[in-house]
Amino acid sequence: MTPTPTRAGDADLPAHCVTRHSFRVRFFETDLMGIVHHAAYLTYAEAARVEYLRRRGAEYRALTESGIHMPVVEAQLEYRRAARFDDLLDVDCRLGALTRVTVRFDCEIFRAGELLTRVSVRLACVDAAHRPRRMPADLDTLLRAPESDA
Amino acid sequence: MTPTPTRAGDADLPAHCVTRHSFRVRFFETDLMGIVHHAAYLTYAEAARVEYLRRRGAEYRALTESGIHMPVVEAQLEYRRAARFDDLLDVDCRLGALTRVTVRFDCEIFRAGELLTRVSVRLACVDAAHRPRRMPADLDTLLRAPESDA
Amino acid sequence: MTPTPTRAGDADLPAHCVTRHSFRVRFFETDLMGIVHHAAYLTYAEAARVEYLRRRGAEYRALTESGIHMPVVEAQLEYRRAARFDDLLDVDCRLGALTRVTVRFDCEIFRAGELLTRVSVRLACVDAAHRPRRMPADLDTLLRAPESDA
Amino acid sequence: MTPTPTRAGDADLPAHCVTRHSFRVRFFETDLMGIVHHAAYLTYAEAARVEYLRRRGAEYRALTESGIHMPVVEAQLEYRRAARFDDLLDVDCRLGALTRVTVRFDCEIFRAGELLTRVSVRLACVDAAHRPRRMPADLDTLLRAPESDA
Repeated sequence: MTPTPTRAGDADLPAHCVTRHSFRVRFFETDLMGIVHHAAYLTYAEAARVEYLRRRGAEYRALTESGIHMPVVEAQLEYRRAARFDDLLDVDCRLGALTRVTVRFDCEIFRAGELLTRVSVRLACVDAAHRPRRMPADLDTLLRAPESDA
Repeated sequence: MTPTPTRAGDADLPAHCVTRHSFRVRFFETDLMGIVHHAAYLTYAEAARVEYLRRRGAEYRALTESGIHMPVVEAQLEYRRAARFDDLLDVDCRLGALTRVTVRFDCEIFRAGELLTRVSVRLACVDAAHRPRRMPADLDTLLRAPESDA
Repeated sequence: MTPTPTRAGDADLPAHCVTRHSFRVRFFETDLMGIVHHAAYLTYAEAARVEYLRRRGAEYRALTESGIHMPVVEAQLEYRRAARFDDLLDVDCRLGALTRVTVRFDCEIFRAGELLTRVSVRLACVDAAHRPRRMPADLDTLLRAPESDA
Repeated sequence: MTPTPTRAGDADLPAHCVTRHSFRVRFFETDLMGIVHHAAYLTYAEAARVEYLRRRGAEYRALTESGIHMPVVEAQLEYRRAARFDDLLDVDCRLGALTRVTVRFDCEIFRAGELLTRVSVRLACVDAAHRPRRMPADLDTLLRAPESDA
């Protein structure tokens, strides 16, 4: 583990490339320490990515049904404070980097404005046979777009 | 996300500070991509840490019952190849760094000798009220020990 | 497994003892069959129970913090049709039976009006040491109440 | 929820139709009550079913890859005593009923000989498009067989 990750995003990504997704912690996501289990935050970031796409007119489900998958190839998590059962969490999901074949989302998870956790996840674009493929042009466009009104 | 993490371990940690834990992928750990969900690897590394301790005469459960918890404060995952349902996995869990208040484990997850995933997790020592505390001396000793015969 | 469970509720429980909780299926809840894993429905019913209480002015979290727990002692699930990733689900959670020491919730899970799954769960009231205890009178009252306006 | 399920098995199923699968409770399977979350037992029964097949020369994975799936259509759980982190559990998985299109497994989960939980699960045979289909003859034969020596 290297010194604290910088997670420096691409300088040319627009500031509007962020979506907030809010929800409550579920009971089963806790563990015997009485706090949210550390693996649950990856599922929170995943849910926020799905919302990031939806608010730009894309559905990750339609992508998967068309044979495009986005497996995670790298993840970094930094836990500052513990979330607890029934906490109302806000996950700010920001497009951090975008290449022809990978995309990185940087999520910050807040409770009442307090930063709890940082989750950065890099995904690769693959086809149904799990072979790397170039990201479709319209997906690239959607990822760079602001949230749509609809 | 910084360039590939080096995960350089402490130079003075003995080579015997490693334990292999093997098990099969369970069905519920897969997702609709047909592969193991990326969050499951954190639970694999967790299971391997518990075995690391057990093979040195410590029980993480007894630790928690005595009021010592080890929450995760940082995690890094690198996914090279996907594990699949029913795969027999070998998790090599190595002590990567050890200070008075934190410990890092570096896990490599293999299937038939092929490296699939790397998981590095740093944990902090806290008391039952989740306040940081110094690691008990006997725990420090156990962590540095080889696997015991018993 | 006996013939299809009747789940006959107490005849004297008011019709207002029901709450609808809606949310989307998350990606990690699916399995390699491409559908929601059968264990996830227990967590859906759990989330709906928490909302049932909240809409009546109670917080399950506050209950647990006051030393009252409600472990599940029995569960029955009937799967009619599969839910899929990103489906918007409506969980109707109805108070099915209430005694001095146990409570049963009967949930029906719908997608666009179509019944997918039935989940009945019976919980017992215990104290922090997991010993059975009588349900507090105010909890009994809340459970029988309609949703509050607040 | 009807009176305690009888789970009466087919009278003509041989006594050898049982397999014991043993493993330890993982940390993430616990919740803030300090015990194993009630949904985890469905995954324990699932793991035991996979072992039941393997010890008779069948691999559930090969079945799924050949386009045969066995989704759960009904489940009943009875929780008597709570399992805890790191408990060594023995799951006795018994073939309870077998028709041309469905199979039921009745699992009893023990810790050191003490019965903790009963899990009965009925599965249906479907093809890759999730349409009901008759169970293959060789699968029917395997399910009725004793554990093989290999």
